[in-house]
Amino acid sequence: MHQIDTTVTAGHAEQHMKGSEILTDIVIGMSDGLTVPFALAAGLSGAVGDNHLNLIWIAGLAEIAAGSIAMGLGGYLAGKTEVDHYNSELKKEYDEVEKVPDVERHEVKEFFSGLGLSEEVQEKAVEEMTKDKDKWVDFMMKYELGLDKPDPQRARKSAFNIGFSYVVGGLIPLSPYFFVTDGITGLRISAIITLCCLFIFGYFKSKMTGVNPINGAIRVMVIGALAAGCAFAVAKLIQA
Amino acid sequence: MHQIDTTVTAGHAEQHMKGSEILTDIVIGMSDGLTVPFALAAGLSGAVGDNHLNLIWIAGLAEIAAGSIAMGLGGYLAGKTEVDHYNSELKKEYDEVEKVPDVERHEVKEFFSGLGLSEEVQEKAVEEMTKDKDKWVDFMMKYELGLDKPDPQRARKSAFNIGFSYVVGGLIPLSPYFFVTDGITGLRISAIITLCCLFIFGYFKSKMTGVNPINGAIRVMVIGALAAGCAFAVAKLIQA
Repeated sequence: MHQIDTTVTAGHAEQHMKGSEILTDIVIGMSDGLTVPFALAAGLSGAVGDNHLNLIWIAGLAEIAAGSIAMGLGGYLAGKTEVDHYNSELKKEYDEVEKVPDVERHEVKEFFSGLGLSEEVQEKAVEEMTKDKDKWVDFMMKYELGLDKPDPQRARKSAFNIGFSYVVGGLIPLSPYFFVTDGITGLRISAIITLCCLFIFGYFKSKMTGVNPINGAIRVMVIGALAAGCAFAVAKLIQA
Repeated sequence: MHQIDTTVTAGHAEQHMKGSEILTDIVIGMSDGLTVPFALAAGLSGAVGDNHLNLIWIAGLAEIAAGSIAMGLGGYLAGKTEVDHYNSELKKEYDEVEKVPDVERHEVKEFFSGLGLSEEVQEKAVEEMTKDKDKWVDFMMKYELGLDKPDPQRARKSAFNIGFSYVVGGLIPLSPYFFVTDGITGLRISAIITLCCLFIFGYFKSKMTGVNPINGAIRVMVIGALAAGCAFAVAKLIQA
């Protein structure tokens, strides 16, 4: 669900990305952190009695611990997987260029033919591309396999940013329940604060992906509200 | 966290993807569905008394409702965003090809120069690429912006598959608590079943991403165990 497009090409754009990657992680972690603990607490607020309000915090904080680890480490794993996958494919391509150069040369030609270039330009391009082995393999990685070289440091940093943002995001909807004596009042305050936050995060998330920010903000807010409504209904049904 | 590479090029490969896309959705939904409700139930099992075991189901089912909606609709949103983004960029590229053809022609040349082709082949390739406007725009979309045409139907289907798999995945760790009379016995059975399932799903997830499946399976299982352990510790600490 967290597919914020971060494709960039070179130089200035890459510098620009460093800040934006952190922002992406924060927005991902925080908007998920806001949604699920909010919905869980909402569900429990209607189902546990007012003298068991502490169960809302216990469940909420347990969820935050579980969710932040699952998302943070999950993000780390995805990043590490990407690096491993890239390296294993890189090795394979070097082997293939060495062992079956004709097959690989044909694949380069297919790329240029796929672009719709003439036979003459295809031939020349293939000849030039396959002169240098490193250049050739780089080309195959990027345009045959569609793989960009991933940053090996990124996985670790990203895991921390997402996990931490999930914790911060999750504490927002949970906090009102510490200060009230009945679940429904807690739910009301939690809903107002959380839906406002979801709107703000939806706004920035949409801006980052180039979608109309107001539409995007409303969509994110509606998802949060639906999740909370459903959790509330489910908990009420079982308890009844 | 759900970055399973699904880059394909054409024809047979695309057919092959239909089945694999559904599998990807199922594995994503189920491995997350297994992890968080498992950890939450584990956390609560140590914190609620044995005469309040029903709270584990209530919280667990509320979490499943919240999580499946957040993930399913979140996936839908991500898919829709991708389609919107593609269409808005497509319109922009058509405009630019019309209004500033020289700038766009220069960008095509930069692509071929970036590949390391000679000046002569660059010139010829640019000439051929920019003859047909549709071909030109397609090229810019794919190689300047790195955008593949997304399937507009995909978002809806994916949302359903992920959400549904989350529910199925979430019911697995929760089910033992329906049949026991004390939380710790429930936790033991739940942990055995869930860690086995996480191993199996981690295995397939890794196979799909081309990583060593045994390593990948162990990693996914360890994340689940860590999340559950942390949730258990957090819940115990607050309750104490």
